[in-house]
Parts: sequence; C-alpha cells; structure tokens
Amino acid sequence: MPQKGEASTQGCPQLADPFKMRSTVNFYLCYLLCLALGLACVVCVCLWNSRWRGGFAWDGSALQFNWHPVLMVTGLVVLYGYGAVLYRVPLTWGQNKLPWKLLHAALMLISLILSILGLYAVFNFHNANKIANLYSLHSWIGIAAVALFAVQWAVGFAGFLLPCSPVLLRKLLKPAHVWLGGSILLLSVAACISGINEKLFFVLKANLQPYSNLPAEAVLGNSLGALIVAFGLVVLNILSNIKWQRPDSRPQDMAYTPLLQEEND
Amino acid sequence: MPQKGEASTQGCPQLADPFKMRSTVNFYLCYLLCLALGLACVVCVCLWNSRWRGGFAWDGSALQFNWHPVLMVTGLVVLYGYGAVLYRVPLTWGQNKLPWKLLHAALMLISLILSILGLYAVFNFHNANKIANLYSLHSWIGIAAVALFAVQWAVGFAGFLLPCSPVLLRKLLKPAHVWLGGSILLLSVAACISGINEKLFFVLKANLQPYSNLPAEAVLGNSLGALIVAFGLVVLNILSNIKWQRPDSRPQDMAYTPLLQEEND
Repeated sequence: MPQKGEASTQGCPQLADPFKMRSTVNFYLCYLLCLALGLACVVCVCLWNSRWRGGFAWDGSALQFNWHPVLMVTGLVVLYGYGAVLYRVPLTWGQNKLPWKLLHAALMLISLILSILGLYAVFNFHNANKIANLYSLHSWIGIAAVALFAVQWAVGFAGFLLPCSPVLLRKLLKPAHVWLGGSILLLSVAACISGINEKLFFVLKANLQPYSNLPAEAVLGNSLGALIVAFGLVVLNILSNIKWQRPDSRPQDMAYTPLLQEEND
Repeated sequence: MPQKGEASTQGCPQLADPFKMRSTVNFYLCYLLCLALGLACVVCVCLWNSRWRGGFAWDGSALQFNWHPVLMVTGLVVLYGYGAVLYRVPLTWGQNKLPWKLLHAALMLISLILSILGLYAVFNFHNANKIANLYSLHSWIGIAAVALFAVQWAVGFAGFLLPCSPVLLRKLLKPAHVWLGGSILLLSVAACISGINEKLFFVLKANLQPYSNLPAEAVLGNSLGALIVAFGLVVLNILSNIKWQRPDSRPQDMAYTPLLQEEND
C-alpha cells in the first residue's frame, strides 16, 4: 500500500499504475458526461421558457413564474451537482485541499442563492395571482430539498471551514454531509420531474395543443426531465464510486495519506 | 486483517469486535426503518385508493386505474427495495450465498410481475377510455424504470444464477448490476412522485375539494409521496454503506473472504 506523503513525492500517483490510470480515464469520461448533461439541462430549460413560455419578467405575471424552473434547474440541480463532484477530480488531489473546499462552498452558496431566488419567483407569482403556496406534493418535496440544502450549507460551513471546528467533529460530520448531499440531489430530481410534468399538464390544454399529442413543447419538456434524471444518475454514480474518492476521504485500508491531511481534513 | 475462512470458523465475526457490533446494530436499526417505511407506503397507497378513490375493479373504469398506484408502489418501490437490501443483512453472511441469491431473484421477479401488472392496469384503462398512452413525463420515467428493471432481472438471472456463466463475467457484471439497481430505484421514486402529484391535481378539482385547500385526501397523497422518498433514501443509504456490504462483495483490502466464495460469487 502506498505510504504517507506519496501524493507529494510522486506528483500524480494515479497515473503510475495502469489500473489507476484506467480508473482516472473512466472518471474523466464520466465527468465530461456530467458537465455536458448539466449544460444540456440549462440550455433546455432556458429554451423552453424563453421560446415556448414567452420569456422572462419580474412583474407577478406568468413571465415571472418562468424564472422558477430556470433557477431551480440551474441552481438546485446543475450547479449543485457540479459542486458535489468537485473533490472527485483527480487533478486536485496532489494539492492543498483548502482552495477546493472554498470553491466547493462557493459553488454550493451560488447554487443555494439561485434556488432561493427560484422559490421567491414562484411565491411572488402565486401571491400576486392569489394562488395558494406549498400545497402540492411537488412543492413539499422541493421545499424540503431547499430547506435541507440550507441546513447542509450552514452546518458544512461551520463544521468544515471555520478554523475553530475540532477535527473530531469534522470526522463525525463527514459521512452525514456526504449522505445528505446525495439525498438532497434525489429530492431535487424528484421535485423537478413532478414540476415539469405538472407544468406541461397545466399549459398544454386539450383545446389548444394537448399534451397527449406530444407537440414540440411537450417533447422538449419531457426531454428536459430525462436529461435531469440522467444528470442526477451520473452525479450519484461519480459520488458513489470509492475508487474516484479523494484518497484521504476513502475508507480506512483503501487510502494513501497525502501530506497536509491533518491541516485540511 | 481477518483471514480466509474466518466467517465459518468464528461463526458471526461482526459481533466479536465492538466497532463491527455497533455497525451491525446501526444496520438493523436502519433495516427496521426501511421495513417500517415500506409497510407504511403500502398501507397508505391501499388506503388512498380504497377509501378515497372508490376501491378496485378490472373493468376499464377508474376503479381499474386504482390498481396502478397500488401495484407500482408495492412492486416497483417497496418489494424492489426489500429485495435490493437483502444481501446487506448480516445474519446471511456466514451462510452459503446461493439460497439468498434465489430469494433475491424471487423477490425481484415478484416485484417485476407486480410492476408489469400495474402498467397493464393503466394501459387497459387508457385504451378502454380512449386516452393516449406514454405521452407524459411521468410515463416516460416510469416506463424507463420498468424496462430497465426487466433488462436488469434478465441479465442478472443469466449472469449470476445460470451455472454456465463464467466467474469473470460475474465479476464484470456486478458493479453495473449494483449501480443500475440504485438507478432504477431513483427512477421509480421520481415516477411515483410525479404520478401522485398529477393524480391529485386531476381528481381534486377546484369546484369540489381543491388540492390547494389540502383536504384529507391531499394530505394522505402528499404523505405517501414523502414516505416513498424517505423509503428510497433509506434503501440507497443501506446500499451505499460499504461497512454494511456482504464481506465478499466489498472492495479489495476491505473484505475478509468466507469459504465457498468461489462457488457462489
């Protein structure tokens, strides 16, 4: 088993061993797929709401509602997923973990802010049109995802970034942080699928272009849903593959220990 | 590290070490929660469709549709989840794997048959009432889940149960089988949430008891959705915890090797 300090003395140890190299190549293929699917989700949701739903405004009209899917998919799904897999990029492993922690926290904060703006857009639209809030299953799952995400960010910031947080607390927090991270993504995906499904039933009425005839907008909305599910599955696959975990994060007996672990754990 | 044969010579090695014992107790608590949540899902979906939706029939009416949520939740979510975590039960580890493989395959086959019956119920209801099939995002995600499940069962049967299947093929298939298994559950949960949400919008019309007023049926339906998500998260948590994997299934350097591994791998 590789010894302490190997990460620094050998530079990029995963390339020295053909099995590790294959694992690294597989990771980057999966990571590229993750980036491409995320981008496709953002393009699709923007295209849907700008081209088929009339674009955007912040005036309490249906055009304000259009910010809701765009901000939730971009923030709560895509940016969230990108932030979640950041530590898995092998390029970052030989380096001090702190800048990557700050980037992880920053990406997650932007994702959280976009999600809260997305919620604000729909609450504001509902209130302006005297529509009740938080009654549908879609809204229950979605609000649970954002609430858990806010708790996760705050506890993650206090536990992993504040210098006064003890190492033992970090070690105890980490598995819960990783598990809750994956769970929030599952909630987000379920909320998106139910939201897109509900929206398409609302807007594609029988007397115009019924959803059941699968007009172009329905195909685009359904494809957006399929892309979101595919993105979620790829992110969860990257997160669950032990070989792709940052070595100092792997279970005992599977990790080599890079220098500076104690400082950045 | 424990040596080959330890599982047989020491009987129940996870109880000999206090850390393993704690892990075992934690597993059983999580497993009990999984069993209870699954049971609660089945009770809720049966109660909803018998008490609020008028019960069951097989005559092309709305009462035939009611079989759809009951069979999908019972088959594609609950029985599927129970079957998926079967190998994680430590009681089964010291024993020959073959009977557990047969039970896993049988549970999954019953789950698949219930899911196909659930699909048949809704196709039949749609056809009798001249409603189009497979246009909504809910139906796309749901049909993808069942199709992948059928492929997964057939490949799993051929790869892991047929005696002529080579050991190398089994080793290659296993990670894909485990990953696809978790992915199918995520698809099932997303399909259920969008389906329950859609159904509640359809049946709770504004002129009767609007969904937005959260009548008892809406609370029950939303709670069913929340229970399904909770069940899915607990199952995925059990599946992703390496310490709870059957020892011969763990990554190299984390496993002890029980006798008979070669026969049953």
